[in-house]
Amino acid sequence: MGTRTVSINTDIGEGFGVWGVGDEAPLMDQVTAANIACGFHAGDPDILRRTCEMAAARGISVGAQVSYRDLAGFGRRFIDVPTPTLVNDIVYQIGALQAFARIAGTVVSYVKAHGALYNTAARHPGQAHAIAEAIGLVDPDLPVLCQYDTVLWHTALDAGLTPQAEVFIDRSYTDEGLLVPRSHPDALVVDPSAAAKRAVDMVVTGSVDAVDGGTATVLPDGAATIAMCVHSDTPGAVDIARQTRELLGRNDVALVGIGGGRHD
Amino acid sequence: MGTRTVSINTDIGEGFGVWGVGDEAPLMDQVTAANIACGFHAGDPDILRRTCEMAAARGISVGAQVSYRDLAGFGRRFIDVPTPTLVNDIVYQIGALQAFARIAGTVVSYVKAHGALYNTAARHPGQAHAIAEAIGLVDPDLPVLCQYDTVLWHTALDAGLTPQAEVFIDRSYTDEGLLVPRSHPDALVVDPSAAAKRAVDMVVTGSVDAVDGGTATVLPDGAATIAMCVHSDTPGAVDIARQTRELLGRNDVALVGIGGGRHD
Amino acid sequence: MGTRTVSINTDIGEGFGVWGVGDEAPLMDQVTAANIACGFHAGDPDILRRTCEMAAARGISVGAQVSYRDLAGFGRRFIDVPTPTLVNDIVYQIGALQAFARIAGTVVSYVKAHGALYNTAARHPGQAHAIAEAIGLVDPDLPVLCQYDTVLWHTALDAGLTPQAEVFIDRSYTDEGLLVPRSHPDALVVDPSAAAKRAVDMVVTGSVDAVDGGTATVLPDGAATIAMCVHSDTPGAVDIARQTRELLGRNDVALVGIGGGRHD
Amino acid sequence: MGTRTVSINTDIGEGFGVWGVGDEAPLMDQVTAANIACGFHAGDPDILRRTCEMAAARGISVGAQVSYRDLAGFGRRFIDVPTPTLVNDIVYQIGALQAFARIAGTVVSYVKAHGALYNTAARHPGQAHAIAEAIGLVDPDLPVLCQYDTVLWHTALDAGLTPQAEVFIDRSYTDEGLLVPRSHPDALVVDPSAAAKRAVDMVVTGSVDAVDGGTATVLPDGAATIAMCVHSDTPGAVDIARQTRELLGRNDVALVGIGGGRHD
Repeated sequence: MGTRTVSINTDIGEGFGVWGVGDEAPLMDQVTAANIACGFHAGDPDILRRTCEMAAARGISVGAQVSYRDLAGFGRRFIDVPTPTLVNDIVYQIGALQAFARIAGTVVSYVKAHGALYNTAARHPGQAHAIAEAIGLVDPDLPVLCQYDTVLWHTALDAGLTPQAEVFIDRSYTDEGLLVPRSHPDALVVDPSAAAKRAVDMVVTGSVDAVDGGTATVLPDGAATIAMCVHSDTPGAVDIARQTRELLGRNDVALVGIGGGRHD
Repeated sequence: MGTRTVSINTDIGEGFGVWGVGDEAPLMDQVTAANIACGFHAGDPDILRRTCEMAAARGISVGAQVSYRDLAGFGRRFIDVPTPTLVNDIVYQIGALQAFARIAGTVVSYVKAHGALYNTAARHPGQAHAIAEAIGLVDPDLPVLCQYDTVLWHTALDAGLTPQAEVFIDRSYTDEGLLVPRSHPDALVVDPSAAAKRAVDMVVTGSVDAVDGGTATVLPDGAATIAMCVHSDTPGAVDIARQTRELLGRNDVALVGIGGGRHD
Repeated sequence: MGTRTVSINTDIGEGFGVWGVGDEAPLMDQVTAANIACGFHAGDPDILRRTCEMAAARGISVGAQVSYRDLAGFGRRFIDVPTPTLVNDIVYQIGALQAFARIAGTVVSYVKAHGALYNTAARHPGQAHAIAEAIGLVDPDLPVLCQYDTVLWHTALDAGLTPQAEVFIDRSYTDEGLLVPRSHPDALVVDPSAAAKRAVDMVVTGSVDAVDGGTATVLPDGAATIAMCVHSDTPGAVDIARQTRELLGRNDVALVGIGGGRHD
Repeated sequence: MGTRTVSINTDIGEGFGVWGVGDEAPLMDQVTAANIACGFHAGDPDILRRTCEMAAARGISVGAQVSYRDLAGFGRRFIDVPTPTLVNDIVYQIGALQAFARIAGTVVSYVKAHGALYNTAARHPGQAHAIAEAIGLVDPDLPVLCQYDTVLWHTALDAGLTPQAEVFIDRSYTDEGLLVPRSHPDALVVDPSAAAKRAVDMVVTGSVDAVDGGTATVLPDGAATIAMCVHSDTPGAVDIARQTRELLGRNDVALVGIGGGRHD
């Protein structure tokens, strides 16, 4: 297991204007990668600037958290955007964030879709293709985070990109490897030590105990690089991230950023 | 006069969504620099993509036409944006356009403020400073277009940037070197040959006959590089641009892009 | 047939800010009902004001053309808006338009969904219910335009509202009574006399020749009130509307507004 | 003093989408009038619906808190909107809120400008006129809240409207009767009993002790109706409102809503 590397990412900078984001420093201190909102579902230029600087100060990776153009819905509603337009919407967001990353002395080193776009791209060929095409145009070396064995996973592989299998520390899974909807009473894993143990188990076995008793495969065989997500709005997110990184460390799993750089 | 170089710029890509921009190819064939709207007053990602490709195909310069965030007002209304926020608003727009320029095989090679921001920065230290600071952060080598001897002109110089003096081929001037408001009956110069002759005169003399009988200084002594603007919505803009470039050529003025590259 | 009444509606006021709408007066002179954009897919407050005044001056009906919140996509993209939010989005739009209608001395007298919302509500119970609920809250007496026998048709009936069956003068139909997609070469009916004849035939028979040889039922048996739509962006829309109203008149069909008022 | 009536208003519903507003019930329990954001600086349709219902449930007055169109800046930045456009922007907002007020079983009974528009209208004739004209168009009986003896005050009077003199319980004043800028260390009055005492003093004397030692006149002679504002983001706003209404009550000042209705 020691040859595997794990990153821990979280969503950052999801305010807008006067609607701020609270103190994100404690969580940023624990993760190795920040999915920074790019302005389409959240994140105004002031926030992009500040969050890039906070990420750079901690040496953690900066990811473009790209979304549908939907401030009113926070990017949580599927929008049937035609593929060519979605390509350009994503390019626009990555480009804007790249400018702030450069100013902060860092770079955008990966891409992760937000909200409804993340879920849609797992099964919608046109929108998965849009994400892959946008990355191919901007920088084919940028890894894209997605769940293993989804449409986006295969689309990215077919496009010659580097998908990174992502698992969720703080969420329950179904037998099929999907996330249990938030409306379910057991949707969240909020006990930090339980979450940390699950994280290590996922690294070791590539699978996770599902909420309905079965086992879900969440990682490809022999995945050398694993992206773990903790949601910033999960209660106790900071503790979950802290205990997870400590337990991973005690199991000789190297904590890294995404797309280059070591963060342990 | 032959040692002077002149660029001709125009605003491009100022549509949004279903509200298109008509056929901009004929005008782009005549100018040497395209001020591309970046999404804040006009220009959606599809349009940014297409206009960058059109500019690249013609070998003309791509400029970031940065604006207040004001789609409803087309960036034509002064907004009292605090300097730090305006800095970041401008960085965001330049960054987004840079992504599309790279995809099209070109680069953003200059910055020009749009509408009310252009006019405001000519006299408002805080907003002039914001433009200069944004350019300094993104790339201090990017020239900024502005009228000679304005607050932005001096602010840019003080910041170690490269302001380029801009004159307007299709607009009348007051004695003070300001543009005659569009509400004035003689605000526009729409006769192509008259406009072309004015353009050459401005290059030769650095000044222009004002609408009220005097003479306005519009260029610094010995300006080696001059930016000329023709507005895309001026009647006959294509002919104005064509006759201007022809007459400049017959007077041995080299037509160039902005921020590098020759276009004659 | 003479006991039937027909209204002719068209979309009006679908500009935004500097992106105007051209001269809509000639088309407004021919129709009896104006579907006025309410600001979510198009239409800013200045345009709402002006179009309400134009409608009032002609004595034609004012309808709230409600939409998803999507200026960038002009309301043409399905958005998976939750029903309660969609209810309130629609109430907001109707309320805003009502203020301008009152100022112009008229009233909002019907509701019609725009673009993707129109098509979605024909088959999506949640969104059809949202439209019906919004109308029920604002004014249950407002008729809602929709295609006959769709989900919205039945939802509106079940809610005690007054759906009005709408047919399209300028569009081809499939056997199932759906519109032939615009990508089809025969999607549009642009010959004014052919369109007018179809319109009369639809009134007489309640059905229309489909593009693939069959016949589509487009009206309920004995419909006393029929809404006919001509799209403002169909080539020759003014002539289509004019010839249609003339031929209807020669066949003793009374031309009326929607929700009260006579316009022949 | 017993013949005077006082209302206490506060800003309500100033969230947007996922960026909520916290629990506003305790503050709404203390005030007699809710300035409800209408969607241009804050407030989406879901929030408008809910806040109207909360106000109706408490029998407090609903005011349209109209603003510049500026979600990114929360309406806190002056925008040089031309008067005719500003008129229509305000009509649009009032109309939208009226729909939700009706649904909640209440009415919009007054208008108050938000943020930069409030401050601008105190001295800018064009924008003061826009507010007055919008109210005149929608309903000339709607009172408009503004500071005494400002441009808006006189503009409203000249237009035949009913300005209501507004004082601020939680803010310090200059000698000239202006608010001390928030950047000043003594800008806020956060001690509830001090605030309550000031409130009563203002009712009795029509003036207030200014921060620099003088006295500022804040009410016209013999004002029968006084609007008092407490900002929802002032620390201890609920206690300030509670103690103010209690002390006013002990001094036989009747607490009322705005534009009709009694709330004591």
